[in-house]
Amino acid sequence: MHQTQIFENLKEEVDLILIYNGSCEDLNFFYVTGLIEGGIFEGSYAVVRPDGVSVITSILEELSAKKGSNEVYVFSTSDERKEILRKIVGEVKKIGLNFSSISLKDLDTIKEILGDRDYLDVSDAIMESRKIKSEDELKIMREAAKIASEVADDIPEYLYEGMREYELAAKIVYEMMRRGAEGAAFTTIAAFGENSAEPHYTAGARKLKKGDFVLTDFGARYHRYNSDITRTFVFGRASDMQKDIYYTVLEAQRIGIESIKDGVHGKDVDARVKDYINSTKFKGRMTHSTGHGLGLAVHDHVGLSILRDQVLNEGMVVTVEPGIYIPGFGGVRIEDDVLVLKDGYEVLTSAQKKELIEV
Amino acid sequence: MHQTQIFENLKEEVDLILIYNGSCEDLNFFYVTGLIEGGIFEGSYAVVRPDGVSVITSILEELSAKKGSNEVYVFSTSDERKEILRKIVGEVKKIGLNFSSISLKDLDTIKEILGDRDYLDVSDAIMESRKIKSEDELKIMREAAKIASEVADDIPEYLYEGMREYELAAKIVYEMMRRGAEGAAFTTIAAFGENSAEPHYTAGARKLKKGDFVLTDFGARYHRYNSDITRTFVFGRASDMQKDIYYTVLEAQRIGIESIKDGVHGKDVDARVKDYINSTKFKGRMTHSTGHGLGLAVHDHVGLSILRDQVLNEGMVVTVEPGIYIPGFGGVRIEDDVLVLKDGYEVLTSAQKKELIEV
Repeated sequence: MHQTQIFENLKEEVDLILIYNGSCEDLNFFYVTGLIEGGIFEGSYAVVRPDGVSVITSILEELSAKKGSNEVYVFSTSDERKEILRKIVGEVKKIGLNFSSISLKDLDTIKEILGDRDYLDVSDAIMESRKIKSEDELKIMREAAKIASEVADDIPEYLYEGMREYELAAKIVYEMMRRGAEGAAFTTIAAFGENSAEPHYTAGARKLKKGDFVLTDFGARYHRYNSDITRTFVFGRASDMQKDIYYTVLEAQRIGIESIKDGVHGKDVDARVKDYINSTKFKGRMTHSTGHGLGLAVHDHVGLSILRDQVLNEGMVVTVEPGIYIPGFGGVRIEDDVLVLKDGYEVLTSAQKKELIEV
Repeated sequence: MHQTQIFENLKEEVDLILIYNGSCEDLNFFYVTGLIEGGIFEGSYAVVRPDGVSVITSILEELSAKKGSNEVYVFSTSDERKEILRKIVGEVKKIGLNFSSISLKDLDTIKEILGDRDYLDVSDAIMESRKIKSEDELKIMREAAKIASEVADDIPEYLYEGMREYELAAKIVYEMMRRGAEGAAFTTIAAFGENSAEPHYTAGARKLKKGDFVLTDFGARYHRYNSDITRTFVFGRASDMQKDIYYTVLEAQRIGIESIKDGVHGKDVDARVKDYINSTKFKGRMTHSTGHGLGLAVHDHVGLSILRDQVLNEGMVVTVEPGIYIPGFGGVRIEDDVLVLKDGYEVLTSAQKKELIEV
């Protein structure tokens, strides 16, 4: 019942909140309806009031929609959709919209249907609610993390000389889906050798050879929630340089994770991690922020970044993912998903093998 | 060089078009930049002029961005991003925006940065251009279709008694990625038995047993473009009823595909397909439209639907996917991707086995 929290967060009162999963996908449709076990819901509305949620959706989604605990109204044509929306919204004056995920075009459509009302931005109230995960959400996120962790632990067994990056990516996604994930949380990264030096590389045709770094960054989407984990291995015996990079990143991650608790500033965690890396010979080689919020979106909200601060609160889930990148040589990143607790943290991703694995 | 076509389509002149891949993902960023081989580009801008495109992106995407033929500007902080945007846009008066994929919040941000200008909706001009695929786009879409078709042909070999739906979905995605797909185009549907009667079902834990329909609906995402194919099989010997449903759908699909050529109305194709099904004992059992446009988005644009018309033009790609659904019993859908030609059509999905396969 996330709507209670959303309405409590409102700075300005509204009569109801209208979420439209329209030309711009709005994950909040799934957040407010709890419809996380199937269906597409393109072009569906959720009408949110403090005491309940009404779903207006296509007849094609009727079975999926009725799996939830919402009132469900079904349309066959776009004229029926308009009529139902007018009826369910009624004569209220102040309508809250999520200005972050409603397109200018869809606002025009809504205005055409509902006419002259006060349309108010409630995106902050929704986002503040989404940042703090409920027990139900955490149950799902623990499962998403478990699926990814099990696969992470098994990756050394998947590797063989001459394997292509995209073959490893395929295997990782297969193993997550076989364990019940709907799919990959995002395009799976499998980077061998020098390709591991590019943080946003995905997977290409490069073949695995002895001495390569193997950097894998992936996550499971489970009931629409995401996990996100990175593990880096060496295929064959690691060089001193590879070990040096790896253990510097591992120590940076330890510092990051152990800094986390309710009330801490995300930017301070990022600074602490970077200060450590910058105190080593790898100064300046961590080119991104330490982590991001995780949930229905992979980049759910601001997390651990000196560029934009976020005070960490109990119930938030953030990634902690320092990395060191040496162009032409390779890179290491180690990432876990961490739940903020009142007096500390809990690592949701359970993959235990944190020491450097030479395959 | 899609910008030439976009500017020709404009009803009202603009000085430049600003595409923002912001809080609402805008696939047109990839359309206008051609950056389809990697990178995420969250929070990136494309400034589009008739004679070229400038990309403003984070330093993390620099390598990916430079793979294209655009001017590339790189920022490290959000202040730098603002400065660069102001400089690249310059003193122009009329700025085109894609009102379909820009959120109200992002428009406010743009107005804050660029101040008082005329912001005009150019979404129709972009969409009209996107509907007609260029040779370069078709080359990629043929590959996406080929990957999905090869897998479709092999599905009978994947099946075994007791297999769970999500295991089949996992195997399908694995086989597509092993052939070079970045991932699944959308959540893979694998529906056994009575579950095949729900058009938007995805995949659950149901086990495969003798006599089941096996409905698989999936696609490959390859260089950001999508394919979309559906094949239905029977595990074991098909009953007369199953054969009857199957061959009615197959005939409906033949009628649909053979109706396609430049100038035909999509709604007429949908009507012809439905008229045929409604002339059989399965009257009223096709509960969705015959097909949709396909491209960078899986539902790229309106296709074959009596609810919203679309005149088919040479270079469009649409799906043709009639289905018959009997709640409690099961359903059949057969889907291919079809390129509209001047005097007819070309089926891009090459999976040849269209007769009912009993596994």
